[in-house]
Amino acid sequence: MPSRGHFIAVEGLDGVGKSTQVQKLGDLLSELGHQTVVTREPGGTLLGEAVRDLMTSEKNVSLRAEALLMSAARAQHCEELIEPALACGTTVIVDRFVGSFLAYQGYGRGMDIASLRTLIDFSTNGLLPDMTILLESPTLRPPKTLRHDDRFEALGSQFQESVRSGYALLAKQDSWVRVSGDGDEEQVAQRILENVLKLFAFESVEINDN
Amino acid sequence: MPSRGHFIAVEGLDGVGKSTQVQKLGDLLSELGHQTVVTREPGGTLLGEAVRDLMTSEKNVSLRAEALLMSAARAQHCEELIEPALACGTTVIVDRFVGSFLAYQGYGRGMDIASLRTLIDFSTNGLLPDMTILLESPTLRPPKTLRHDDRFEALGSQFQESVRSGYALLAKQDSWVRVSGDGDEEQVAQRILENVLKLFAFESVEINDN
Repeated sequence: MPSRGHFIAVEGLDGVGKSTQVQKLGDLLSELGHQTVVTREPGGTLLGEAVRDLMTSEKNVSLRAEALLMSAARAQHCEELIEPALACGTTVIVDRFVGSFLAYQGYGRGMDIASLRTLIDFSTNGLLPDMTILLESPTLRPPKTLRHDDRFEALGSQFQESVRSGYALLAKQDSWVRVSGDGDEEQVAQRILENVLKLFAFESVEINDN
Repeated sequence: MPSRGHFIAVEGLDGVGKSTQVQKLGDLLSELGHQTVVTREPGGTLLGEAVRDLMTSEKNVSLRAEALLMSAARAQHCEELIEPALACGTTVIVDRFVGSFLAYQGYGRGMDIASLRTLIDFSTNGLLPDMTILLESPTLRPPKTLRHDDRFEALGSQFQESVRSGYALLAKQDSWVRVSGDGDEEQVAQRILENVLKLFAFESVEINDN
C-alpha cells in the first residue's frame, strides 16, 4: 500500500497566473519523482467538462442552479478522480476548488455562505485539501485576453474586489498559504514549490520508474 | 393582482400512469376555467431538459453528482417557471417533484434523507406544493415498455419495493393525498380531480377568455 497522496488546491482571481503555476507545480513535483496529477474545477471528468459546457451554452441559469451544477461537477471530480488518485499515493493539484466556489458564488455573487458550505459538504463528502494556496497579486491585473468560457470575467471590477476580499477572508479563516504573484513565473513557481514541499518533508522521495 | 395559483405535485412509481393523469388533470382544470401549466421534473426548462439529457448520455455519474444535477434542474424549474406562474395566478401541476427525489434517491438508492433535504431546501428556496398526490397501484405493475430515458426502471423489483415503501412513508409524514390507481383512466382522473378541487373550494371560478 502506498502512503496517501497530498491534495493541493490553488486558488486566486482570474488573470493572476494560476493555471500556469498549477502546471509548473505539477511538472516540478514530477521531476522530483512524485507521481502527480493536475486537474481543474469545474471539469476534470467527462461529466464535469459537460457541466462546464452546459453553464457556458445555456443562457438562462439561475444562481442556485449554477451553484448546484458546480457542486455536481465537484462531486464527480472527487469521487471519480481525486479520491482514487490520492488513495494510490498520487499527489493531486487542483486549479480551483471549494475556496473559489465560496469566493465567487458567496462573496462575489452574494449567496449565503452557510448554504454554500452545505453544498460543499455534500459534494466533497468531507474530502478537503491538505494545503490551499492563494496566489495573490498586489495590484489588480486584468486578464490579458478575455476568455469566453468564464462568465465571471465580464462582471467588472467591483465584483472582482468583492471576490478578492472574500479570498483574503477565507485564507485567514481556513489557514491557507498566501503566495505573492510578484516577479516572473519562475520566481513565483519556486515560492509555491517551497511551501508545497513542506507537505513532503517527513517522507522519503520515492522515484517512480513507471 | 390575481390570487396566487395552486401548486400540485403528482408522485408515484414508474408505470403507474402518472404522466397520463397529470395531463388529464391539466385538461380538466383548464376546461373548468383555471389557467393551468403542466410540467415535469427533472426538466421543465431548457436547462432542466439539458441536465436530463446529460444524466442519460453520461455513463459515469456518481450518486452525489446525480442528486446535485437533479437539484440544479429543480432550482431552475422553481425560479424560471413554477414561481412566476404561481405569482400570476396560474395553477402549476408538476409530474414529480421533491417527493420522488426523496423516494428514489433516498429510499431507493440509500442516500441520507437529511442530506437530500438540505439539497431540497437550497434548490426550492422554500417553495413547496400546496398538495402532493401519490398515485398508487395496489399491485406492482411493471411498465409496459422500458423507456430508455429512465435509468431507475432497469434496477429491478427490490429497488421498486424500496421506493414504494419510501413513498408510503413520505405520504404519511408529509400529509400527501393518496389516490388509488385502480379502475380505468377516467375513473382515476375523477378521483384526482375531486381532491384537487378542494384547493379551489373557497374561490369563485373565473373563466379566462384569452
